[in-house]
Amino acid sequence: MDDIVSPVAVIDEDKCRRNIRQMIKKAREAHISFRPHFKTHQSHAIGRWFREAGTEKIAVSSVSMAEYFAQDNWQDIMIAFPVNVRETNRINELASRLQLSILISDADIPGKLEEKLVNHIDFYLKIDVGSHRTGFDPNDKTLIEKTLQKATQNPHLRFKGFVAHAGHTYHITSLNDVQRIFIKGSELLTGLAEYFRKDYPGIIVSWGDTPSCSLMNEFPGIDEIRPGNFIFYDLMQYHLASCDWDHIAMVVATPVVARHKQRNEIVLYGGAVHLSKDFIEMDDKTVFGEVVKFVDKGWEPFPKPLYVNRLSQEHGIFHCPDEYWEEFSPGTLVGIVPVHSCLAADLLKNYYEISEGVFLDA
Amino acid sequence: MDDIVSPVAVIDEDKCRRNIRQMIKKAREAHISFRPHFKTHQSHAIGRWFREAGTEKIAVSSVSMAEYFAQDNWQDIMIAFPVNVRETNRINELASRLQLSILISDADIPGKLEEKLVNHIDFYLKIDVGSHRTGFDPNDKTLIEKTLQKATQNPHLRFKGFVAHAGHTYHITSLNDVQRIFIKGSELLTGLAEYFRKDYPGIIVSWGDTPSCSLMNEFPGIDEIRPGNFIFYDLMQYHLASCDWDHIAMVVATPVVARHKQRNEIVLYGGAVHLSKDFIEMDDKTVFGEVVKFVDKGWEPFPKPLYVNRLSQEHGIFHCPDEYWEEFSPGTLVGIVPVHSCLAADLLKNYYEISEGVFLDA
Repeated sequence: MDDIVSPVAVIDEDKCRRNIRQMIKKAREAHISFRPHFKTHQSHAIGRWFREAGTEKIAVSSVSMAEYFAQDNWQDIMIAFPVNVRETNRINELASRLQLSILISDADIPGKLEEKLVNHIDFYLKIDVGSHRTGFDPNDKTLIEKTLQKATQNPHLRFKGFVAHAGHTYHITSLNDVQRIFIKGSELLTGLAEYFRKDYPGIIVSWGDTPSCSLMNEFPGIDEIRPGNFIFYDLMQYHLASCDWDHIAMVVATPVVARHKQRNEIVLYGGAVHLSKDFIEMDDKTVFGEVVKFVDKGWEPFPKPLYVNRLSQEHGIFHCPDEYWEEFSPGTLVGIVPVHSCLAADLLKNYYEISEGVFLDA
Repeated sequence: MDDIVSPVAVIDEDKCRRNIRQMIKKAREAHISFRPHFKTHQSHAIGRWFREAGTEKIAVSSVSMAEYFAQDNWQDIMIAFPVNVRETNRINELASRLQLSILISDADIPGKLEEKLVNHIDFYLKIDVGSHRTGFDPNDKTLIEKTLQKATQNPHLRFKGFVAHAGHTYHITSLNDVQRIFIKGSELLTGLAEYFRKDYPGIIVSWGDTPSCSLMNEFPGIDEIRPGNFIFYDLMQYHLASCDWDHIAMVVATPVVARHKQRNEIVLYGGAVHLSKDFIEMDDKTVFGEVVKFVDKGWEPFPKPLYVNRLSQEHGIFHCPDEYWEEFSPGTLVGIVPVHSCLAADLLKNYYEISEGVFLDA
């Protein structure tokens, strides 16, 4: 790994491909379709691993990400973020060359899109299944009905169904809680779809979030899943028990730049601009990532786990007990399992594949 | 501002230039030199505003940033981050074409650099003046002496002095505390320089951090200041009282994508990938930024301040009382004063100058 001189996302292609295969298998066995969220990796090269496994449709979280994947010939893209009406020109351009779908999360949007669209676009209504981030209240059928009526008057808009993202599964700590959130949310969503199918036959229900897609095996009433994070997983997912340690497919490589024995601290070239400031709390301590050791074509945790517990713009700091002290010296390359791999990947942009020992192209 | 369709850093050139002039004036009046930290803006265009005001030497926080500014012909660059020995080849290349200085923060570094350097490089020892992030303990003169002896045996290394960054000024809340931190830290640092000047005449003392450079007027014993954040300031600095509201020279423009009246919440296209997850606590609430209104060639706060209090990868959410509700609808461009402008600028990369209404080149 001598080629790695500064922070980079190190991934294990076999683990990524296995994570992809397992999620595809799960979707297939549940007879639902699979629209992986590509915001996690934002990479043509990794996108092709999905394509090779049979994936044809994807979700992204911005117009620019849709443009990026359109360049690699993805033909069915959902921008899984409430539509930004300031980007109508770019949306029209994308819709001219691929099957584009957008999300509507506010009743005023259909009016704002009036006479703005020039090509056919599919749309979904975003439904709030309990995370209260955004989306229509599933109990407010009147507002949903009114919004649909207005939207479907637009000759360029076609109603495809309802989407939900149970973001609140990221804040729980047990499998039971994930099940509870999934069952409650999916019942709301499928009930809503049932109600509207009399007027809009054929509409589908699409469900996101890696914890529930990872932990559930049955998805009654759901037609499509859109997990993203599962390609890499991360420390947050591991602590939610969404994945085993061995499913974690990405770590951030960071060089040691200083050791301070008087307080047993080691300073890494790896900070907020590489890992993001996302953290989890463990035993009342703030954790920005777990330190791992690079071994032959892989990495492994320390028997007594080491955590990055301070982070500034470029510095990461971890406390290192005496027994591991000699494992590190200036220049040692250390892996960090990030708390949130999507944000770390967004910051780092490029990937080093550890089995082959090569940087990925894009 | 119709050209702005997605999140971008909006800056006010007049305010930036005034912030630059004021810091230069302060340094001049204190008879110390000025080496601004360019990690905050990372922009050739903004760097030229400094050059036009007379700046000739700069600090950056990575080798790649040094390479970037070398492209715009900066000839005296300090990489103000503990030297990463894995990047020796790139450091040698840079040192072949400009006056480069590096930081040494670990006694093992001189040994690691032995026979690795091929061009003349200045070095500073990083001293820990109390933030305990990194640096030599100023009381451990033996270790400092030993490190200097080893380093100065290297014919390519020339000792220039001591640097400190009082990062702990970012965690305090009163002018008195900043003064106390500055006085204590600078006395340690200048005492150390005094001691070593008998063997290393001409060495200098360089001091960083925006709060103390903003709030102090006298810098006894200090030869150089290296503030960075002051070009834009931000919500954290405003709440530390490092700056007045009117000094804040950057906000992040974010479009409204949804309103949810049932909980008086407004959803912005502007999240962790635009603002970073840095936050401050205000009245026991987590704050990721302050919402401002764009007005003719500028922005202004709401009389009752509005704060972004939830943030995910692309979504920012703020609570909006009824009295301001009609100011916002999908597509409205909203400004956010970021908590930490350095991280937001690092994420956004590009700038829109609000008086002229143009995007900056680089």
